[in-house]
Amino acid sequence: MEFNLTESIQILGKTPYVISDILKDLPDTWIKTNEGGDTWSPYDIVGHLVHGEKTDWISRTLIILSEVTDKTFEPFDRFAQFKNSKGKTLDKLLNEFCQLRSENLQKLKAFKIDEQALMKTGVHPEFGPVTLKQLLSAWVVHDLGHINQITRVMAKNYKIEAGPWPKYLAVLQDKL
Amino acid sequence: MEFNLTESIQILGKTPYVISDILKDLPDTWIKTNEGGDTWSPYDIVGHLVHGEKTDWISRTLIILSEVTDKTFEPFDRFAQFKNSKGKTLDKLLNEFCQLRSENLQKLKAFKIDEQALMKTGVHPEFGPVTLKQLLSAWVVHDLGHINQITRVMAKNYKIEAGPWPKYLAVLQDKL
Repeated sequence: MEFNLTESIQILGKTPYVISDILKDLPDTWIKTNEGGDTWSPYDIVGHLVHGEKTDWISRTLIILSEVTDKTFEPFDRFAQFKNSKGKTLDKLLNEFCQLRSENLQKLKAFKIDEQALMKTGVHPEFGPVTLKQLLSAWVVHDLGHINQITRVMAKNYKIEAGPWPKYLAVLQDKL
Repeated sequence: MEFNLTESIQILGKTPYVISDILKDLPDTWIKTNEGGDTWSPYDIVGHLVHGEKTDWISRTLIILSEVTDKTFEPFDRFAQFKNSKGKTLDKLLNEFCQLRSENLQKLKAFKIDEQALMKTGVHPEFGPVTLKQLLSAWVVHDLGHINQITRVMAKNYKIEAGPWPKYLAVLQDKL
């Protein structure tokens, strides 16, 4: 499938509502349980998405569309949420995510991005030159990937209780 | 985690809204694209969930809680949606799913299921004896598994467009 800006904005706009629908009003056992070890709970994932709104996707879009000479992105901190979410309820994080996402999509629309702008590049600290189109596609996949992860983490809570069924429940066999 | 009926009903009640939020108003390219071969598109998955409401989870709960001597479940038809969804829009299927799920959860609540009832058994055509607790746990995992599948199927649409990012987007490496 080819990248489509309008459809991408539509999907990105849905994510905070989808994740709120999944998690809202559930007890902490469902929100704070992870897949073991240093894996992430749904609560950790929402914190990670909040941090992405503050430092990742739109900041990198801005760099690509700017006229600065050094277009190297700041490395993204994948563990920032463990510090930044401290003391915040899930509701607070979800509201923050909704608000920031809405503001960021307004900014994205205001750029009036055309085909030419989509081919502009920035420099990823690891990948090297990447286009705006690749960055925005990755943003969409990243959102869907974290909804995917939240449902997998939750599903695993009933792996034992489901008795013989896990054989036919592929989500329980997925790797991390 | 131990099975909890109230929490399970809460999660089961969310699913139609979560899936509607993800899919509503998206163009057919996102709704009808699958992972290749005979895999399922989001549209196929919603049809499968509708069929499950009609013939699977509540029907099997009824058998377990009934006084009939032969408590063997009917085998579930995993391909019924390819016939039953024909000619139906996604919106129609989503409305049907919402409606049936709501009715089925009303029935589930009306059974006034206690700890003793949760240990009652029925006979799965392949697994043999299974408890009501295992059936209801599997229902929750099954829901989460299909939200998981829908987001994975959608994410793969941008696998090429995301350029070098798929290396860090685990959802694109997941097996079917």
